[in-house]
Amino acid sequence: MVASVREILDKVRAEGRTALTAPEGKQICDAYGIPTPREGLATTAAEAVALAKEIGFPVALKIVSPHILHKTEAGGVLVGVADEDAVARGFDTIVADATAYDPSAEITGVQVQQMLTGGQEVIIGATTDPTFGKVVAFGLGGILVEVLKDVTFRLAPVTADEARSMLDGIGAAEVLRGARGAEPVDAGALANVIERVAALVTDFPEITEFDLNPVFATAGGATAADVRILVDPGKVTDPVRPSREEILRVMDRMMNPRAVAVIGASAEPGKIGNSVMKNLINGGYKGEIYPINPKADEILGRAAYPSIGEVPGEVDVAVFAIPAKFVAGALEECGAKGVPLAVLIPSGFAETGNVELQREVVAVARKHGIRLVGPNIYGYYYTPSNLCATFCTPYDVRGGVALTSQSGGIGMAILGFSRTTKMGVSAIVGLGNKSDVDEDDLLTFFEQDDNTQCVAMHLEDLKDGRAFVDAARRITKKKPVVVLKAGRTAMGARAASSHTGALAGDDKVYDDVLRQAGVIRAPGLHDMLEYARGLPLLPTPRGENVVIITGAGGSGVLLSDACVESELSLMDIPPDLDEAFRRFIPPFGAAGNPIDITGGEPPATYEATIRLGLEDPRIHALILGYWHTIVTPPMVFAELTARVVEEARANGIDKPVVASLAGDTEVERASEYLFDHRIVAYPYTTERPVAVLGAKYRWARAAGLIGG
Amino acid sequence: MVASVREILDKVRAEGRTALTAPEGKQICDAYGIPTPREGLATTAAEAVALAKEIGFPVALKIVSPHILHKTEAGGVLVGVADEDAVARGFDTIVADATAYDPSAEITGVQVQQMLTGGQEVIIGATTDPTFGKVVAFGLGGILVEVLKDVTFRLAPVTADEARSMLDGIGAAEVLRGARGAEPVDAGALANVIERVAALVTDFPEITEFDLNPVFATAGGATAADVRILVDPGKVTDPVRPSREEILRVMDRMMNPRAVAVIGASAEPGKIGNSVMKNLINGGYKGEIYPINPKADEILGRAAYPSIGEVPGEVDVAVFAIPAKFVAGALEECGAKGVPLAVLIPSGFAETGNVELQREVVAVARKHGIRLVGPNIYGYYYTPSNLCATFCTPYDVRGGVALTSQSGGIGMAILGFSRTTKMGVSAIVGLGNKSDVDEDDLLTFFEQDDNTQCVAMHLEDLKDGRAFVDAARRITKKKPVVVLKAGRTAMGARAASSHTGALAGDDKVYDDVLRQAGVIRAPGLHDMLEYARGLPLLPTPRGENVVIITGAGGSGVLLSDACVESELSLMDIPPDLDEAFRRFIPPFGAAGNPIDITGGEPPATYEATIRLGLEDPRIHALILGYWHTIVTPPMVFAELTARVVEEARANGIDKPVVASLAGDTEVERASEYLFDHRIVAYPYTTERPVAVLGAKYRWARAAGLIGG
Repeated sequence: MVASVREILDKVRAEGRTALTAPEGKQICDAYGIPTPREGLATTAAEAVALAKEIGFPVALKIVSPHILHKTEAGGVLVGVADEDAVARGFDTIVADATAYDPSAEITGVQVQQMLTGGQEVIIGATTDPTFGKVVAFGLGGILVEVLKDVTFRLAPVTADEARSMLDGIGAAEVLRGARGAEPVDAGALANVIERVAALVTDFPEITEFDLNPVFATAGGATAADVRILVDPGKVTDPVRPSREEILRVMDRMMNPRAVAVIGASAEPGKIGNSVMKNLINGGYKGEIYPINPKADEILGRAAYPSIGEVPGEVDVAVFAIPAKFVAGALEECGAKGVPLAVLIPSGFAETGNVELQREVVAVARKHGIRLVGPNIYGYYYTPSNLCATFCTPYDVRGGVALTSQSGGIGMAILGFSRTTKMGVSAIVGLGNKSDVDEDDLLTFFEQDDNTQCVAMHLEDLKDGRAFVDAARRITKKKPVVVLKAGRTAMGARAASSHTGALAGDDKVYDDVLRQAGVIRAPGLHDMLEYARGLPLLPTPRGENVVIITGAGGSGVLLSDACVESELSLMDIPPDLDEAFRRFIPPFGAAGNPIDITGGEPPATYEATIRLGLEDPRIHALILGYWHTIVTPPMVFAELTARVVEEARANGIDKPVVASLAGDTEVERASEYLFDHRIVAYPYTTERPVAVLGAKYRWARAAGLIGG
Repeated sequence: MVASVREILDKVRAEGRTALTAPEGKQICDAYGIPTPREGLATTAAEAVALAKEIGFPVALKIVSPHILHKTEAGGVLVGVADEDAVARGFDTIVADATAYDPSAEITGVQVQQMLTGGQEVIIGATTDPTFGKVVAFGLGGILVEVLKDVTFRLAPVTADEARSMLDGIGAAEVLRGARGAEPVDAGALANVIERVAALVTDFPEITEFDLNPVFATAGGATAADVRILVDPGKVTDPVRPSREEILRVMDRMMNPRAVAVIGASAEPGKIGNSVMKNLINGGYKGEIYPINPKADEILGRAAYPSIGEVPGEVDVAVFAIPAKFVAGALEECGAKGVPLAVLIPSGFAETGNVELQREVVAVARKHGIRLVGPNIYGYYYTPSNLCATFCTPYDVRGGVALTSQSGGIGMAILGFSRTTKMGVSAIVGLGNKSDVDEDDLLTFFEQDDNTQCVAMHLEDLKDGRAFVDAARRITKKKPVVVLKAGRTAMGARAASSHTGALAGDDKVYDDVLRQAGVIRAPGLHDMLEYARGLPLLPTPRGENVVIITGAGGSGVLLSDACVESELSLMDIPPDLDEAFRRFIPPFGAAGNPIDITGGEPPATYEATIRLGLEDPRIHALILGYWHTIVTPPMVFAELTARVVEEARANGIDKPVVASLAGDTEVERASEYLFDHRIVAYPYTTERPVAVLGAKYRWARAAGLIGG
């Protein structure tokens, strides 16, 4: 099949065209097993009549000419042509009209086509996304796609499961399942068309746009009524992609260096080169620190060298704290020295319009095989090595979260949030202009880094969407990755259109592709930070049964709302379990789910119901709603909850437990206490603990870690 | 017109029917000027032919029988009947089929109807909402309404503007404005139909459901192709609604009492009657406090009385702190004493299933004209009177925010949040079971209460949706009202259906009606609290031009995203203003909007650009993005910003200013400092400051306070 498509595309290229004719489109569909209406090409009226009789009436007649793209405008389309006479007359009419429309157009003939009716009209297409390359699209025809943009994307190629998931990925999915009394469409057939379209554009990257619009989906199959194909014969150059081993070798030296040089180290407080030196030393880094400064003998007690070439030992990382214009020169020296990685703190490159200078620096790095982080960054932290290679303040609370940010401001917010919440961090990395090292390099490292349990990334773009997805798909099987994608407004600016290319607003493609890669997208900065803080504390749930136990009925209602919002399933409590809960709560309390133990209850009631929730194997996660009373004060609640949860853990039962604390300010300390005991707890909000649990579930589902 | 409808409905009632026939429906539409297809009733085939000729072909034929509701099922509908012959044959066929379907059915005749085609199919309907009564609905026909629930509601009757707003109130509004190359529909005609439907169901409350489905909307008008009307002849009893004066008289005594009695006051710590006494005294309340307890002579230094009847002076408020079963008796004594208001703290009423006891208490109160707050509440606070009539802890930070909650747990969250953020509060009121006093009484009071600038309410239901809307419409013209409506999941449970009644999931109606009433709906508890805290601090913006000034480009992108989310308009900066900003920022900084002053700038740059933003009259609101650097540390930024904003205020320029602070933990204190200076500022989040500004704008727009 590839050969026949190759042949057609070569012909198109030879003729200097970028659009394919309908018959060419059909041939390509045939080659890839994409069902199209029965049809044929007639060069005379008599041929047209013969074809129509073979196909069955009514038929559509369409002009075929390499020079007429807008067939309808040219009067070149007749639909619902009902009998032999009409076909004969129709042939003559449209040929005459088309010739009148464009006298110079070469008329290949008239396409006689089976008329498709009935079923559900859907759109299946593919386009070339600037970030991710080939993506396939699926949506319902008409207003739903064109006005409501109810469309879903996947990276091509797709597996059968991924193709199938697209049918459920649109808002109006119910229509395909037979809403409004209609028969369900043949989902397998539709998914099959999607798969084949994805395969086609993967096999032939020169196909930039591919639209089947409409496809008639019925209970018995799916047939594409119209195909539109655009090609771009230009060569696409694949981005440079180091191998996993190469990435890991350099990343390991970045995170666990034996020696760090500071280019532009300074003894003068307030200078970046001074802050970096101080942070390296005060941060507790145990490797060698080499200040590089031609005008100093020693800086902060460390022997200084006039250039990196003079440094006696090997250097793993060179941190640059010199003005932009000196970077290329110093980098040459790093190359000569064999330094594998340079961290470029200085700004004044592409972000200020100085694209050329950045290009020059990258060229020097490529020449010497040096990997670059930055430029235009605050540096980075890796706590397992006590490494604070940054001009910001040191950070030393070790833990499982690795964070990265494209922007320095967001990096500072990460630092402040981490410090105030005492968030355990493995790494914080500034990526800035991403002239070289980017998110996929870091994901590749964090995937195999035992010090990292969760990754959170702020990003505004991806240099290489494919590499990111590849790395993300691997790591998210084991560890959650949270992404805050900034710049979500592109979609709004697009005009109504049914072409896949125009539908692929950046953000919608990002949204779908990130989900496809198993990544959790955070709706905002604060959410990203809270997810990062909470996810590593929660164990992976074993199933979908979530139970709310609450002392405040009002919190119970809000927690239920939050569960709907976060796509969590409130367990339908079986009668025996309901009975078991009822034994602990007052007669007017409500079992069911939420389980409302009522407000005036003593600690024993919280304790008994939480224990039951942990011990019953049918329950997979607990959401607690606490109400501050004199009978059960905040710290009493916090301590008993932590104790019961830890007892269960000691017995091998580890379920995610989150809590919402409603009360006077003592609930703040109680929430912190619970956090310290791996229970994700917040005061004054019912939404946030449920959102964190929801994020954990989203990850676990995507990673295939939840049964059923 | 009313008379003819009255006649039809009386006939329907007399015949014991609840559904109207199609001709009756048409007569009612005619009476209210709702356009319907040309049609007539034929009792013979010849009459049918004559009618069809008059109307024009093709026509539809429909059986008319009071006993056949499902006409299609009965074989009683033929569409697209194209000529005289076909009409004659069709008449005979559907009469025969209908008779076969139900031999006992009385056949009135056959309706001959103009066939409507073309245009956009929409649905206009009305239903009777359990909370709000008559509501009208509008949506596009087909999948959009039935599967995607893209439908909008308004309280009936509607003004012309409200009816018009419904056309923009659906997701697919663009379709009506002429998306996909179609002509725009006649919006005036459509709005007119909505208005008339709303008027009809208002005039005739016995019409419980009214559906025009479909209505064909074209560039030239709107015609209802089918009408379905259900009636319920039962009498609707209007809820008890005290006059505004009555409400204010009692509410004023509640909030500014000269004397408070505590029924069940106790000297024993831990008892509710003791906590209430302590809070009244320690809270600083200056009026008389009368402990009522038959077993004590004095409690906490105040002379105690065996019953309220023995109290020497007048009593404005009786706070009940006795078990549920004693409430009715003590309330009788309050009635005898002439107490106008009782605050019922005790639980054990409807919320525990004891509906009868609550009914009894309400009956006693009605008999004596006593208004009841509760039962099942924590009490209430009114800081201008130093009044803490509650068993919780006292609260004394005075300010402009009044908060209410239906749930005690949420009330405790309000208290804790208020204390930790030092939120200035006028009132906190528990509403609990709302046996009598509810949100609309409080809104009526807060509207005219000069101590209250903003109201925030947590609610799970409304006893009297109409009264709430009436009160909300009045107060929101002057002061923002934020509502957290809990229990949002009803919609999800509904099956696909095109009947307005089934579409009116509680939450969607709440959402639309609250917006129509000018209320800001908070998406969650924490949002409600932050809106309450921030809204009174921000002045009302004079226009829609929002400008972002940021030191961190990364924050600028996220702040822009947040503006889209919050429906704020980033100002299109005119060239002279752009030029003016550029004078202060580095050449590689970005003017435009966001205005990126870049990260390394000194305080002077922040100061100059903020001042320019305040002083240029074309700018209406500022969003600041701060990036923590050594050059401009957090408190320096906070102080300069507060100073510049206060200078502007002194010069009569008061614009809303909000800020997002990205940095190390010092940004927390800087944010607090800014809050103290009426600048809504948060650390570690770009979303929240913009969301609060967005809430202010939503209120100001609904209140008609923004020009243009």
